[in-house]
Amino acid sequence: MQIIDGKATSQKVKDEIAAEVTQMKAKGGKTPHLAAILVGNDGGSETYVAAKIKACEYVGFKSSLVRFKDDVSEDELLAKVQELNDDNDIDGFIVQLPLPKHISEQKVTDAVDYRKDVDGFHPQNVGRMSIGSPAFISATPQGIMELIKRYKIETSGKHVVIIGRSNIVGRPMSILLSQKGYPGDATVTVCHSRTANLKEVCLQADIIIAAIGSPEFVKADMVKQGAVVIDVGTTRIKSDTTKSGWKLKGDVAYDQVAPKCSWITPVPGGVGPMTIASLLQNTLKAAKKEIY
Amino acid sequence: MQIIDGKATSQKVKDEIAAEVTQMKAKGGKTPHLAAILVGNDGGSETYVAAKIKACEYVGFKSSLVRFKDDVSEDELLAKVQELNDDNDIDGFIVQLPLPKHISEQKVTDAVDYRKDVDGFHPQNVGRMSIGSPAFISATPQGIMELIKRYKIETSGKHVVIIGRSNIVGRPMSILLSQKGYPGDATVTVCHSRTANLKEVCLQADIIIAAIGSPEFVKADMVKQGAVVIDVGTTRIKSDTTKSGWKLKGDVAYDQVAPKCSWITPVPGGVGPMTIASLLQNTLKAAKKEIY
Repeated sequence: MQIIDGKATSQKVKDEIAAEVTQMKAKGGKTPHLAAILVGNDGGSETYVAAKIKACEYVGFKSSLVRFKDDVSEDELLAKVQELNDDNDIDGFIVQLPLPKHISEQKVTDAVDYRKDVDGFHPQNVGRMSIGSPAFISATPQGIMELIKRYKIETSGKHVVIIGRSNIVGRPMSILLSQKGYPGDATVTVCHSRTANLKEVCLQADIIIAAIGSPEFVKADMVKQGAVVIDVGTTRIKSDTTKSGWKLKGDVAYDQVAPKCSWITPVPGGVGPMTIASLLQNTLKAAKKEIY
Repeated sequence: MQIIDGKATSQKVKDEIAAEVTQMKAKGGKTPHLAAILVGNDGGSETYVAAKIKACEYVGFKSSLVRFKDDVSEDELLAKVQELNDDNDIDGFIVQLPLPKHISEQKVTDAVDYRKDVDGFHPQNVGRMSIGSPAFISATPQGIMELIKRYKIETSGKHVVIIGRSNIVGRPMSILLSQKGYPGDATVTVCHSRTANLKEVCLQADIIIAAIGSPEFVKADMVKQGAVVIDVGTTRIKSDTTKSGWKLKGDVAYDQVAPKCSWITPVPGGVGPMTIASLLQNTLKAAKKEIY
């Protein structure tokens, strides 16, 4: 069994981006600029946005943070989105989710200029990804694709079983891995809460991608010897052994599953750290106008 | 074994639309208006467009046909697309594919206002379909969904195996049937040319959707007793027994497969006739502003 080290890979991606940005600047190019809109004071969102801004600094991007109180109106937020759409210095921006209940997340997502949608949530980017056109791909799927590539995991003709059909992980992974090329050309099965005989389906998998948010859901008796297991779950559970009082649990019962795997991503330190690397990659692509 | 009769169902859908249009007009509403752009003189395209216009007449829609010679420039075509986008009387329009090689089909598809994209090919509609938002769904997948609904084929928890990963059939079917609700909630496997053990995968299927364009590809030994088989293939092959000199062959070896099925779509007379019904449904939705 070998570990797919997302933390180390993320660091490597960030260092590569930093090197490229240094070169771009040396040639007199524009500094890539990522903006983030943060509404309210949700602890998780604060942490994520702070980490994104720190990562921008690390690679040499300019970053801007726009804050709103959680009673901001939808119209005010949409006006700010429009302002960022029109701001030529900003290459890409994100609206940190979740938003307060009185604001439609879909409406806000739709309002972002898809050419600056480095989160890859706009229908235009989702659609282009689906038909195989160049597109901003959202952070988690892109991070998984990057891990598969960098660890040279074979996918062609392999049976990939995806547990979970969410718009941000399961669905895009099923599209990407069944497309032509590498990483892709896999036979892909999408499973979910309505799937009958999940265990039997999983036992056929050469690659399992678990993305349901149910701690330790995937047990050893669901995994074929030699399978690759990618664990997207990150559920916070209470813990007496950590300073914070909680720890992250993946969707895979790691201790019993890992011995059967050829490759496995740990939680934490697997897919999670790749998401910020993906956001930086997308912002760099936006700055270089690689997609649009 | 029972036959899923696409011809009869298509007729029923058309009659329902005709009745609704009569009512709309009686209430003083606007007549739904579909326009089609046809480039060149491809025999297949001529036939399809003629059938679409005839169907418009049947249900009481207004229709417009815009013809270009096959040496039309991309710019001229794009200008016409813009004109139709701006024409308030036109609810929806299609650009009949294929286009001559000197014109980018993707560019033309992208130029269509997605709110008038009744073919459902615009990335915006593909993306919205993928995330489960209201969208124009392209003709063949929507026709298959309609058949499944009208024949009350159970899909929840069923294993659907889709052979083919095209953007116009395989991919959207995999998305639609794995989404929540009905018809959906199925466990969906997408197979294609790189799939290993296709026969074994197909034998697990409660529902097989064959969409590869390879005549009689699906044989009896690939189909489980009692399966539902939906045949999307329509390959023209030479024939001495028809006046036209050719006949349509599906992707399923019908004579040997049908006896094992609970339900099966024939070719011709299965999925094919549903595509025009779908286009009419989308045009009606556009006229009623049901999606956008």
